[in-house]
Amino acid sequence: MLDFTFYNPTKILFGKGRIAAIAQEIPTDRRILITYGGGSIKRNGVYDQVVAALAGRTTFEFAGIEPNPTYETLMEAVRVAREKNVDFLLAVGGGSVIDGTKFIAAATPFEGEPWDILAKRARIQRALPLGAVLTLPATGSEMNSGAVVTRRASQDKLAFMHPLVYPRFSVLDPSTTFTLPPRQIGNGVVDAYTHIMEQYLTYPVNSPIQDRFAEGLLSTLIEEGPKALATPDDYDVRANIMWCTTLALNGLIGAGVPGDWATHMIGHEITALHGLDHAQTLAIVLPSVMAAKRDNKRAKLLQYAARVWDLTDGTEDGRIDAAIAKTRDFFERMGVKTYLRDYGVSADAIPALLAQLKRHKLTRLGEHQDIDPAVSRVILERCLAP
Amino acid sequence: MLDFTFYNPTKILFGKGRIAAIAQEIPTDRRILITYGGGSIKRNGVYDQVVAALAGRTTFEFAGIEPNPTYETLMEAVRVAREKNVDFLLAVGGGSVIDGTKFIAAATPFEGEPWDILAKRARIQRALPLGAVLTLPATGSEMNSGAVVTRRASQDKLAFMHPLVYPRFSVLDPSTTFTLPPRQIGNGVVDAYTHIMEQYLTYPVNSPIQDRFAEGLLSTLIEEGPKALATPDDYDVRANIMWCTTLALNGLIGAGVPGDWATHMIGHEITALHGLDHAQTLAIVLPSVMAAKRDNKRAKLLQYAARVWDLTDGTEDGRIDAAIAKTRDFFERMGVKTYLRDYGVSADAIPALLAQLKRHKLTRLGEHQDIDPAVSRVILERCLAP
Repeated sequence: MLDFTFYNPTKILFGKGRIAAIAQEIPTDRRILITYGGGSIKRNGVYDQVVAALAGRTTFEFAGIEPNPTYETLMEAVRVAREKNVDFLLAVGGGSVIDGTKFIAAATPFEGEPWDILAKRARIQRALPLGAVLTLPATGSEMNSGAVVTRRASQDKLAFMHPLVYPRFSVLDPSTTFTLPPRQIGNGVVDAYTHIMEQYLTYPVNSPIQDRFAEGLLSTLIEEGPKALATPDDYDVRANIMWCTTLALNGLIGAGVPGDWATHMIGHEITALHGLDHAQTLAIVLPSVMAAKRDNKRAKLLQYAARVWDLTDGTEDGRIDAAIAKTRDFFERMGVKTYLRDYGVSADAIPALLAQLKRHKLTRLGEHQDIDPAVSRVILERCLAP
Repeated sequence: MLDFTFYNPTKILFGKGRIAAIAQEIPTDRRILITYGGGSIKRNGVYDQVVAALAGRTTFEFAGIEPNPTYETLMEAVRVAREKNVDFLLAVGGGSVIDGTKFIAAATPFEGEPWDILAKRARIQRALPLGAVLTLPATGSEMNSGAVVTRRASQDKLAFMHPLVYPRFSVLDPSTTFTLPPRQIGNGVVDAYTHIMEQYLTYPVNSPIQDRFAEGLLSTLIEEGPKALATPDDYDVRANIMWCTTLALNGLIGAGVPGDWATHMIGHEITALHGLDHAQTLAIVLPSVMAAKRDNKRAKLLQYAARVWDLTDGTEDGRIDAAIAKTRDFFERMGVKTYLRDYGVSADAIPALLAQLKRHKLTRLGEHQDIDPAVSRVILERCLAP
């Protein structure tokens, strides 16, 4: 096992009807900015539950945080937060709303140009406290300290992490997900699956606990994901998926093991240039990374094949190929296409994607930092079509 | 899955040499009381590492916290903490030292009789902050908010829990465990194994994540436990056991599932009256509870047999019997005897044990609260001898 530091102070309030509990989690004298996205929370009753829980409190609202939240939009929220002297943020939505709200939390008291938090890793010394009401199980943002923000003007999609932006609490009520469109459920499952793989599918470091936890989460997504599409109002299925997606990226399964994250880095550039959903890019890139890095990842690929897909017969490469095919097939069964061609992106897009990676200094990716632009090209070429 | 609240703010500093990092975790102006046990930390170098890390700080010491820490000893520490105006506690040792230090943390600022914290669940409004340097992987106290304290005078062994006594940080350096006697390693593995079983072996609530995490921890203890006895200085083995014992009781695998805890409650009385090690009582009582409650626990017993011990052939009761026998055999291989007879305790001890359970109002134990004194008697009778 590698050395690690693990710290995660977010309080999880899990279960049906738990939104009411936010009243006890936010001090009564706080000036609260409620942040959300496109308004689905007004149609599914979540907004009403939040408003009821905060009756009598001083609240303001900022709507319109988009998928892949943009710096431009978030800076509008920062202006509102400053103008209204807000001292608590409540994010109501999915990973994009929560990510965006983390940036608002750090940017509001920041002295200087807040873009530097992302572009120059400027030091954060203060942040507004935030809480979250999760409505879309996917990114894990509700229980971690990271956020990804896109600058519309320059197509940069950049991340920051800071302990001050852990949500103080997050409400996970699985029944709030019943009305999600299938596309968002499929995306969420693929996103969480890939988060797990980024932390699992590297090289062995004698970490049986982390390995088994990761395999347990993967197996649960494989079992429950298709059920979530087939029977959208099955509470237990949604509960299992929701807790899985949170545990996939809360620091636990990554503590003490190497991380890859090449799939995410390459995927971010595809979203930035071609507007694909985040999870769509992961479903495209992950199988290519598995295939292209099969020698480095051989031991864990064989373990993954055996323990997650029960593939134990045949040659090593045969088992690895079968495991990659099973992974791709699972993503497709979740409704997420796994080739660039499916989204109308062709080979002539590759040079610009490679240029973006270079511009973001992402030229040494992966757990061995050996995915240079030439390897990224091979990976992207494998992404094009079967 | 059942509804749950999960909150665990303890920062874990894991790895060789991490004791030095406590310097950054304790504010420099704090008046620190270092608490420890019988002095093994002076022989194995841990004390020296702590002193070196805190060079130049204002520190005091309280030694002599015993296994199954007593109220009488801990109140001496409370007097020291009050007299010296201590405002940070650093527990250096195993679960007893950390449990005892949690009580000191709550009792020092407590107005009134601190025994009421245990006996009357008196409300805790303040606690001194504490950190821990763990030297004995076993109880999980380093990453939870619970503590068990014994009153020597009355033989009462009682517990309390409070969010204010989560350690602010805990250092887990597996190399500090190399010099532990085999008895303490065996006890630690049995203790953690039983913690997991108390949260796993109840009844199904559609909780595949919690089940797989629990099974993963059990399988890891089964694999690594005997290696820890055979090769005491294998860092990776000790690292895996140390992280297992912490995760066994940090709230994670118990979130969203029922808990049993009858084995612990009955075991506490055996320790109080007969002085057996905590883990020895668990190794005795757990197999009896499994056998006595086989009907209520049938579904999970069969799952445990299949997934942890690969027992899938034969009748249901045959598989359950085999799983109980495997469990007992594992404890014996860890050097912990599993019958009361092995410790010189005979049938005439049972009435006094039942009287203690009654005195502590422990007359409705288990996940169904159906272990009344008559069932406890059956369980204890099964504990006597094969």
